[in-house]
Amino acid sequence: MLSWVNGRPQDAVPVTDRGLSYGDGLFETILVASGQALGWALHMDRLARGCSALGLPPPPIDGLNADRAGLCAIGPDPAVLKIILTVGGTARGYARPDPFAWRRIVSLMPAPAWLRDDYESGIRVRWCRQLWFSDPDLAGIKHLNRLPQVRARAEWTDAGIAEGLMRDPEGRVIGGTMSNLFVIKDAVLATPNLTQCGIAGTMRARIMAIAHRLGWTVEETALSVMDCYRADELFVCNAVRGIRPIRQLESRMFRPGPVTRALQREFGFPWPIPEDAR
Amino acid sequence: MLSWVNGRPQDAVPVTDRGLSYGDGLFETILVASGQALGWALHMDRLARGCSALGLPPPPIDGLNADRAGLCAIGPDPAVLKIILTVGGTARGYARPDPFAWRRIVSLMPAPAWLRDDYESGIRVRWCRQLWFSDPDLAGIKHLNRLPQVRARAEWTDAGIAEGLMRDPEGRVIGGTMSNLFVIKDAVLATPNLTQCGIAGTMRARIMAIAHRLGWTVEETALSVMDCYRADELFVCNAVRGIRPIRQLESRMFRPGPVTRALQREFGFPWPIPEDAR
Repeated sequence: MLSWVNGRPQDAVPVTDRGLSYGDGLFETILVASGQALGWALHMDRLARGCSALGLPPPPIDGLNADRAGLCAIGPDPAVLKIILTVGGTARGYARPDPFAWRRIVSLMPAPAWLRDDYESGIRVRWCRQLWFSDPDLAGIKHLNRLPQVRARAEWTDAGIAEGLMRDPEGRVIGGTMSNLFVIKDAVLATPNLTQCGIAGTMRARIMAIAHRLGWTVEETALSVMDCYRADELFVCNAVRGIRPIRQLESRMFRPGPVTRALQREFGFPWPIPEDAR
Repeated sequence: MLSWVNGRPQDAVPVTDRGLSYGDGLFETILVASGQALGWALHMDRLARGCSALGLPPPPIDGLNADRAGLCAIGPDPAVLKIILTVGGTARGYARPDPFAWRRIVSLMPAPAWLRDDYESGIRVRWCRQLWFSDPDLAGIKHLNRLPQVRARAEWTDAGIAEGLMRDPEGRVIGGTMSNLFVIKDAVLATPNLTQCGIAGTMRARIMAIAHRLGWTVEETALSVMDCYRADELFVCNAVRGIRPIRQLESRMFRPGPVTRALQREFGFPWPIPEDAR
């Protein structure tokens, strides 16, 4: 793994870093393919929203652009570019340093192995017991306080389970631990609204834009467990793994359907959809 | 600042540390005076509860004992010993490393300047707008996901304000950003119950034990803003700064009263209470 801190090769950060001490910062995980950081502008937009939500100055976009260009010129391809932006360091105490200086921690590592079957036949998912508690102040943004997702992911070790779905305390489905969820019923797409909790994924945004362009109805709404079981099609998505149909949710079986196939085709990454579905 | 990582002098951690990536870990902040780490057993107990709540193995007590002894032998006194315990490192992904290995990050730094007036006359505090959202799974423990407290602390820059009080979404008072709160009315002590959110401080536990020993009534209960305004005495406490009376909450003035003075006297640290109150 290649790693730069504030633009210089470095694989460690001071123990006083506030990202470590308090999770005082944000992150982005970006797919790099053929030298391109896919959805870069959307990632930078979310980072800017996150900075604003945390009461921080705008992100150091010029530095991040330079990091991206520098690392992509020397690193593997395809790859995952991970950005962590922290508030720098103080010895102790919740008060932020004054004057303020961003710490940019940018790493590039080989892309994960994409399994063709995950895209063609779909994945198995389960419900998590861990709830996604509400915090409207932080809803949607990708900050460094991720214990609920870590705890949810720790609920299973079966390698055959690709993702777990999380609900809020009122039983509304919020999404996967590391992905957003889409539910298709009668040719209408629905995805959980994320005004109270959850992370608003860049792939989610791209899929909504594609669906609008194709003239489909897309709703951001409250979704129940039963909405999932009654769906015609279900899929999860994120920036690194793209669109993966759900073929099994607990004991309920699904088949990847025409809406999922059309979106996979439009998106075209990370795996060419099967010929027979074109 | 002296810093050891896994028992060796080191002032940095790998960028892959899961404390940095996700806040996947816990911390303790302990006062060291005359070579003693005050309340060590209570801090270790909370750490053990935190590990259990996060679904992690018991804390590496032997290693932490060695770190404490080693650092206290060479460091300043009085001092603050800060322990961060993280789940180690993985390049990416919420799944924890298997096999598992703790990373112990232990630092020793000079104690803060204690201001005599804070203990004698008391401090000024304010209400924070930032809410302490509920998460019963994580309530009470001192994990590394502390963005709500960071955001609350960022609400003021006036150096004359020593602490901010936080409420939950139902308006119940939870405590200070970095301290626990006690409300005294008609010789009864009350402190917020922390079953839904908040951090259960070691000083809070010690004060409750002292109060019980003195035969006083202590309630862990839901407290409203009005309960605070109507109190006879108010104080905040934490392990590093001890017991500080509140002399002003917004525009309401208080005088340190007999219960606060008696507790300060019993506790005897970090500042001898004024002679005239003995």
